[in-house]
Amino acid sequence: MVQYTDLDSSFAALSDATRRGVLEQLGRADASITELAGKFHMTLTGMKKHVGVLEQAGLVTTQKVGRVRTCKLGLRGLEEEAAWIERHCLLWDARFNELDKVVEELKRKEKADAPKNRE
Amino acid sequence: MVQYTDLDSSFAALSDATRRGVLEQLGRADASITELAGKFHMTLTGMKKHVGVLEQAGLVTTQKVGRVRTCKLGLRGLEEEAAWIERHCLLWDARFNELDKVVEELKRKEKADAPKNRE
Repeated sequence: MVQYTDLDSSFAALSDATRRGVLEQLGRADASITELAGKFHMTLTGMKKHVGVLEQAGLVTTQKVGRVRTCKLGLRGLEEEAAWIERHCLLWDARFNELDKVVEELKRKEKADAPKNRE
Repeated sequence: MVQYTDLDSSFAALSDATRRGVLEQLGRADASITELAGKFHMTLTGMKKHVGVLEQAGLVTTQKVGRVRTCKLGLRGLEEEAAWIERHCLLWDARFNELDKVVEELKRKEKADAPKNRE
């Protein structure tokens, strides 16, 4: 069953350079499994597996007409994933700003103490 | 060796709800492995493995002082990952806008042809 709201499966699908390449390719034009296999110098079996992972994550849909299976971008985009990463970036910035402040404070104290140490 | 520019390892690190939870937690405050294990109802061994994956991806750093290993957010943020996803969202929007246009065009033609069919 396709889990449309599952960040686990989408991030796992994105953790492979070939699968990211397939998404980029399908962002430009639909393509058959054979075309994708050729483009990424891969066996049909290997490409079928990658497409299967993308399909499970809801990022790609496929349709078989005759002997050709055509792949397109799925109805699911990556908005949830983008939102998660954006939230993390904000937290990350905040943490490192905090750290900067601590370092600045330490430097300030060090300067203030310096004349005393010389006495 | 840590691969700081490796999207594979960072997306793989993000593909687990506990690891995403750990990053959220460390975005609020540093924590020891023991504290994280407690928070996520996990064994120490299980949590060490998750932290190891995050560390390998450069998203977390750890430091052992005495018997306590403290975890912090790593120096690497998720800007590259955010950029990749943003590019995909743009391609995705463009593809579906194209599709919308095709559907609109078909509808328009259908309407235009309708009176002729009735004749």
